[in-house]
Amino acid sequence: MARLVLKFGGTSVADVDRIRNVARHVKREVDAGHEVAVVVSAMSGVTNQLVKYVKDTSEFYDPREYDAVVASGEQVTSGLLAIALQAQGVKARSWQGWQIPLKTDGAHGSAAILGIDADKLSACMKAGEVACIAGFQGVGPDERIATLGRGGSDTSAVALAAAVGADRCDIYTDVDGVYTTDPRVAPKARRMDRISYEEMLEMASLGAKVLQVRSVEMAMVHRVPVFVRSSFDAPDAGQWNGTLVCDEDQIMETQIVSGIAFARDEAKITLLGVADKPGVAAAVFGPLADSSINVDMIVQNVSPDGKTTDITFTVPAAEFARAREILGQARNDIEYRELRGSTDVVKVSAIGVGMRTHAGVAARMFRVLADKGINIQAITTSEIKISILIDADYTELAVRTLHTLYGLDKA
Amino acid sequence: MARLVLKFGGTSVADVDRIRNVARHVKREVDAGHEVAVVVSAMSGVTNQLVKYVKDTSEFYDPREYDAVVASGEQVTSGLLAIALQAQGVKARSWQGWQIPLKTDGAHGSAAILGIDADKLSACMKAGEVACIAGFQGVGPDERIATLGRGGSDTSAVALAAAVGADRCDIYTDVDGVYTTDPRVAPKARRMDRISYEEMLEMASLGAKVLQVRSVEMAMVHRVPVFVRSSFDAPDAGQWNGTLVCDEDQIMETQIVSGIAFARDEAKITLLGVADKPGVAAAVFGPLADSSINVDMIVQNVSPDGKTTDITFTVPAAEFARAREILGQARNDIEYRELRGSTDVVKVSAIGVGMRTHAGVAARMFRVLADKGINIQAITTSEIKISILIDADYTELAVRTLHTLYGLDKA
Repeated sequence: MARLVLKFGGTSVADVDRIRNVARHVKREVDAGHEVAVVVSAMSGVTNQLVKYVKDTSEFYDPREYDAVVASGEQVTSGLLAIALQAQGVKARSWQGWQIPLKTDGAHGSAAILGIDADKLSACMKAGEVACIAGFQGVGPDERIATLGRGGSDTSAVALAAAVGADRCDIYTDVDGVYTTDPRVAPKARRMDRISYEEMLEMASLGAKVLQVRSVEMAMVHRVPVFVRSSFDAPDAGQWNGTLVCDEDQIMETQIVSGIAFARDEAKITLLGVADKPGVAAAVFGPLADSSINVDMIVQNVSPDGKTTDITFTVPAAEFARAREILGQARNDIEYRELRGSTDVVKVSAIGVGMRTHAGVAARMFRVLADKGINIQAITTSEIKISILIDADYTELAVRTLHTLYGLDKA
Repeated sequence: MARLVLKFGGTSVADVDRIRNVARHVKREVDAGHEVAVVVSAMSGVTNQLVKYVKDTSEFYDPREYDAVVASGEQVTSGLLAIALQAQGVKARSWQGWQIPLKTDGAHGSAAILGIDADKLSACMKAGEVACIAGFQGVGPDERIATLGRGGSDTSAVALAAAVGADRCDIYTDVDGVYTTDPRVAPKARRMDRISYEEMLEMASLGAKVLQVRSVEMAMVHRVPVFVRSSFDAPDAGQWNGTLVCDEDQIMETQIVSGIAFARDEAKITLLGVADKPGVAAAVFGPLADSSINVDMIVQNVSPDGKTTDITFTVPAAEFARAREILGQARNDIEYRELRGSTDVVKVSAIGVGMRTHAGVAARMFRVLADKGINIQAITTSEIKISILIDADYTELAVRTLHTLYGLDKA
């Protein structure tokens, strides 16, 4: 007997039939003798509709009211799932964030979880009642509903799994696991049986959409094993497929490179002819930081004449226009000759804990990309990943080339 | 300066534009220096959709989960209204039933209000913040959401008005007040400026749909003046129309008959050849009461032979089939010869507090209806109303005839 937290996303609860299907998955685990809590998202499309209502009402909206409106979507599915389970003879009840309570810092719209009083929840689970929990939400110190931000249901599920001491958190989604890269780009991509927290965190941060970064961080901190699987598998199939996100030491043989991630939503900005003197980096990046714009890859060329240099960096594509405007306003402080920008770039990354102990991973990457005529515009590395910025036209070619290079193609 | 509770129904908050219009009505009252709370229903159609989800999920649903699902509709509009008010420069926040808290007995789906802790709410109103309250819901002793049943938003509003000591409760609806009868049936119907609680209660009970019976009862008990008006009036019109439901002593000149109500959703059942002996009424009406079927008008003929008699009574048309079935099963206990039933009947009522002091109201009614060839099938009376059951084909004729008879036609 184990204690499990299951999480189902919006497409898995998109209508009453799918909610019934979710209930069958849950019933299978209950019948196997497990204690189960289920975290659900809103029906797909509902959250977007609610957000649209809010924005149509006012462009400048109170985030506390945004939360009251938008959190209603998960409330609906939690209740419907409880009803569907009861109809299948399974004891169940719904839980809203404020009922548990799941306490947050009250940063409405993107609240952080401060703690979960799991006593009532645990008692119900122990008594054999499935807890159907509205994801993506908790309550703030102001006793008002606070949402965790988009995709927050994954985070809810992992946090709840940690709080109730679950043996595993199963994330049911519309794909059957984590792949070595996006199969739509590289048909030879393979599903991984296991991936370490650290690698999953890099994959998620660098563009893989299967899990939210925050939920992986939380799983890593609390050492919650997370199993990613498909909600479209038959609930009564004996054998099921998926990827276990777990501790590195639970993986028998680690690859040097485990996966290739890519992110298209990057924009590149180059400042030409910047005065090469102390304080210039602060002058460039200070105003961007003040406006909460995340700067990622930064390349500063060696100054050829000792007087001016060029600085290249990336920002999220959604922030591109705002970043240009801010840098335009700061031109007197920064003193640059010209600003060039482009959104026709992609960041491609190779990720693997094996890199820690194997040299030459980057060198092989640069050589093989050069052979294909792909120009590298910027590079960043960490202990377990290498990211390069290239022309977006070369995305698929680069991803497939690296996938093959590191031996990830399926047999 | 006054303290006001305003209530807007589903058609008044059907979309973002209408919610903005509601905000303009509210702003007008705030600008006039009043302290304001607003109770809102769900957007029209939303509650029906949510109920459908519940019933599609399972015919036999847990009413606690029904409440969790269905109450989300009002949560959305309360948040959107707060945003719309803020956008117009008015301080506002949303309140859910559990946040106030509005305490109920926890009879999920049709909860009764036990009490309202109005301290937090009153403090906010006093500080000039408009309270945007999700109608139709509170919290039960089980700390779960409990709804008040359909139409419960009117009841929420009146109960909140009583709790915060409001000077008036304004019910905004899709008509501009209470009419002497339905203008679609009698074009000469007039809007009343004032109507007493007692008369309004009879009007609502006997078929007028403008206010919920429960809300009128509550207004009468707590002596909350209720003003019924149209949300489609221009918010900035200087003069506005409506009907004040108030104490009888606030009405200068009472009519003998104030209004004519009618209800088409009645069914008539006649049991022929019932043994005329003690206990027979209990045998007929006991099983119906046990099944929560409301019996209204009852007529028992004098027994011609001293052995058997006929009993005629009405039940809600929605319960007609069930009532027949129950009486069929009880046939051995009741011993009747034949059961006849019909839904082609209408109950027409004349209502007025002046009846208490004026004789002959009923006699005039019977005479004028006889002159028109309308046969009366059953009669019930109370201190301030006379109701008759007639063939539904004569509905309009009877209503117009009585409207004219009692001097209610507009000049």
